[in-house]
Amino acid sequence: MEIKVLRNILEANEAIAAENRRQFDQHNLYVVNILASPGAGKTSLLERTLEGLQGELAMAVIEGDIAGRIDAERIGRHGVPVLQINTGGTCHLDANMIRRALGEMALEGLDLLFIENVGNLVCPAEFVLGEDAKVTVWSVAEGDDKAEKYPRVFLESQALVINKTDLLSLTDFDLERARRSALAVNPRLAIFTLSCRTGEGLAGWLAWLRAQVKRQAGTTY
Amino acid sequence: MEIKVLRNILEANEAIAAENRRQFDQHNLYVVNILASPGAGKTSLLERTLEGLQGELAMAVIEGDIAGRIDAERIGRHGVPVLQINTGGTCHLDANMIRRALGEMALEGLDLLFIENVGNLVCPAEFVLGEDAKVTVWSVAEGDDKAEKYPRVFLESQALVINKTDLLSLTDFDLERARRSALAVNPRLAIFTLSCRTGEGLAGWLAWLRAQVKRQAGTTY
Repeated sequence: MEIKVLRNILEANEAIAAENRRQFDQHNLYVVNILASPGAGKTSLLERTLEGLQGELAMAVIEGDIAGRIDAERIGRHGVPVLQINTGGTCHLDANMIRRALGEMALEGLDLLFIENVGNLVCPAEFVLGEDAKVTVWSVAEGDDKAEKYPRVFLESQALVINKTDLLSLTDFDLERARRSALAVNPRLAIFTLSCRTGEGLAGWLAWLRAQVKRQAGTTY
Repeated sequence: MEIKVLRNILEANEAIAAENRRQFDQHNLYVVNILASPGAGKTSLLERTLEGLQGELAMAVIEGDIAGRIDAERIGRHGVPVLQINTGGTCHLDANMIRRALGEMALEGLDLLFIENVGNLVCPAEFVLGEDAKVTVWSVAEGDDKAEKYPRVFLESQALVINKTDLLSLTDFDLERARRSALAVNPRLAIFTLSCRTGEGLAGWLAWLRAQVKRQAGTTY
């Protein structure tokens, strides 16, 4: 009975996500859904990415938080359109929240839309939004066992950003164990190791994003 | 309709939690439900706490994880009874999982039971387990805005442990902002600032725990 209810919710979500996807495709828009634990550095990664691709790609951001507009204010300083969703308690974004947000945004002319999900390494992985790719951010301060303990989000992601490498020497984080365990869950993961604080390693991540957008836009780019 | 289903689930959970509570009370057992984001240091805090109260209090641990037994193995090295719950995808522990675990444990003679919840700063806050206190662990590597963005778990907790203070100088974490924002959500929070890595600040946390257990046991302690 409970399982049936959950299935219905997930099926309804997938139908709306497919509608969102059609809208994105009509605009040749590449959409990235960013997932992570609270405080892994999703917003910092976005800020660095906006700086890195500024003037090159037309970008916008949808911020998902349970409460507040702290992240939208941080993103707004970078001069891109930003829309804050407050879930009011819900632990993940769903496709209907995104559909409503799209009613408030001009997609025309955009190349790249980032959706920053609620900080939660579990539930957001179950709710597709219509995105092209999920990207998981993992901070080295969280320990190197996260792919073993929270496999689903790694399985659903196209890319993994291992962040805060500036803290590596102060932690027991074993980069090889982290990479190996993430690839054991999902051998096709693109993995980037970087520090949003120092900027080290960002170039590889930006190059991957550019390539994804270019492929999405095909010859029209 | 969806809200009704959720309410029924939460009501059923609360009824089972009340049964768990009766079992705990029969054994004069103080029960702590530990909540945090993935990688904030729940297991490290437990390890330090077991070391600190060893020989003084009889303790046991229930480990909650989506998958694996990494944490149970870490705890098992400290010579206390430990039981691993694998939720198999569910993003939180619920009272029924704990009821089933209690069927596998000897509570007789125990003073203090720790339940380490799934790493998730959102969902576990909604599911009471029958515990005496919820304790939230917050790592300084996560940034100082967590109480503003995830208020519910702070509201539900009796104590807050701000962990990994050894990383403070490498982050922008503002300890005063963190404390102020947590107390704005819940003015009755007991707040401890410590480093599980260096051991700094642990004494205050251990003293608080001792006092809680003593109060629970009343004159029989």
